[in-house]
Amino acid sequence: MTHSPHQGRLIGVSLGPGDPGLITRRAWEVLHSGAHWAYPVRAARAESYALGITRLAGLTPPAEASALIFPMTHDIEKLSRHWLAAAQSLLPILERGRDVAFLVEGDASTYSTFGHLARTVTALAPTIEVETIAGVASFLAGAARTGVPLGDTDDTIAILPAGYGVATLDRLLEDFDTLVLLKVKPLLDEIIDWLEQRQLLEHALFIERAGSPEERVVRWLPTLRGEEVNYLSLLLLRHPHRQRPPLVRGCRPRRGAPTP
Amino acid sequence: MTHSPHQGRLIGVSLGPGDPGLITRRAWEVLHSGAHWAYPVRAARAESYALGITRLAGLTPPAEASALIFPMTHDIEKLSRHWLAAAQSLLPILERGRDVAFLVEGDASTYSTFGHLARTVTALAPTIEVETIAGVASFLAGAARTGVPLGDTDDTIAILPAGYGVATLDRLLEDFDTLVLLKVKPLLDEIIDWLEQRQLLEHALFIERAGSPEERVVRWLPTLRGEEVNYLSLLLLRHPHRQRPPLVRGCRPRRGAPTP
Repeated sequence: MTHSPHQGRLIGVSLGPGDPGLITRRAWEVLHSGAHWAYPVRAARAESYALGITRLAGLTPPAEASALIFPMTHDIEKLSRHWLAAAQSLLPILERGRDVAFLVEGDASTYSTFGHLARTVTALAPTIEVETIAGVASFLAGAARTGVPLGDTDDTIAILPAGYGVATLDRLLEDFDTLVLLKVKPLLDEIIDWLEQRQLLEHALFIERAGSPEERVVRWLPTLRGEEVNYLSLLLLRHPHRQRPPLVRGCRPRRGAPTP
Repeated sequence: MTHSPHQGRLIGVSLGPGDPGLITRRAWEVLHSGAHWAYPVRAARAESYALGITRLAGLTPPAEASALIFPMTHDIEKLSRHWLAAAQSLLPILERGRDVAFLVEGDASTYSTFGHLARTVTALAPTIEVETIAGVASFLAGAARTGVPLGDTDDTIAILPAGYGVATLDRLLEDFDTLVLLKVKPLLDEIIDWLEQRQLLEHALFIERAGSPEERVVRWLPTLRGEEVNYLSLLLLRHPHRQRPPLVRGCRPRRGAPTP
């Protein structure tokens, strides 16, 4: 099915982690294009983090923008109902030929609601065209801010919610030079104990609200023991002196061509 | 040591993967700030990919910009000599009080030379201030372009050079929902065989020069067998139906407070 020229496009506008300087030029262009704005909120009348980034950038949200409710839950049926309601509320706008800019904090492909919304919209109206504008993910901003490389030549990088637990993290040390742990809040004390046992404390950094104006960097994690940290916290761990297996790289000689 | 107000700052300017729309507002601002431009090249008189992105954005490089040679090698002594030569060539400019904008393709913290350059500069002149502007990494652009989420709620993401081999990849399937394989060129046929054996072909995507104007997406990898692909190629693999261990998340009840 081809896109109808009379339909608007659904655009996932990644705004980066909060610093308005990290908004891309393409996202900025769409914000000023006259597209209808839509943004996620946790509940009716709640603040939208994504919308807040546009305010930090000095923009005034259009009066008729759509606040779409996506509650904080892992209940897939409840979430699906909200994706459907959101998609249904945007469809008349798209069908009238107006582009919809869905504002996303961070990057639209990385732990974002946008993919679900886009799939629901195109399930209802398959000819609607979707554009996803990539953005700066919070862990990239955290690495830049602290000067810690996320990865150097031949490095391996793992990004995961800390909730998989210390035993998983410990196993991943064999294969990864960098661990990016998300949502560290509920497990922080256990992770600090583990880092201490593994003598990795000096190679770990804690970053709260990475890339936002309220960013906080903690370079010695034991000071955080027992503290209630923000939900938007990540931990960057560089694993020095990992024993690496040999690596195939460059222009490897081809093996003998198969006999016909 | 504190920054001297008479010194310029060394700024790592991430330009994103090639699409000039993915340059951030902060990077754009620095490009227009009158800072001295420096950019990496593989050899004298070679083209610079990073500089090319500014040309795609319609900018004309300043006549006196510095081409810094970083050869394609894993020889750490040879690389160190080039980092030192590059840092030494920039120091007089910084000491005269002019900012230096080092242009980086992709993101400055992700497989980039910038960290080495910055460490070498500050080793020589510890009061020089460094700013790293985060940018859109190529794998984020690849995910956005193909509509494949890099990670969804509770997903785990591994980013690694494919050269660690199929046995490593196979082991990582246990712990990861998404594998991003970089530098797939020398191992592509073996990886296609492995994906086929694992019945994962339909969940893999090949992206050449992700996020650049020459981007190419291949959704059925067997068509690539035997083909010489570009060096800047990545493979996105989503692992459906991974058996996940239970996950600790949200506001976990605290264990009993320690007895004093």
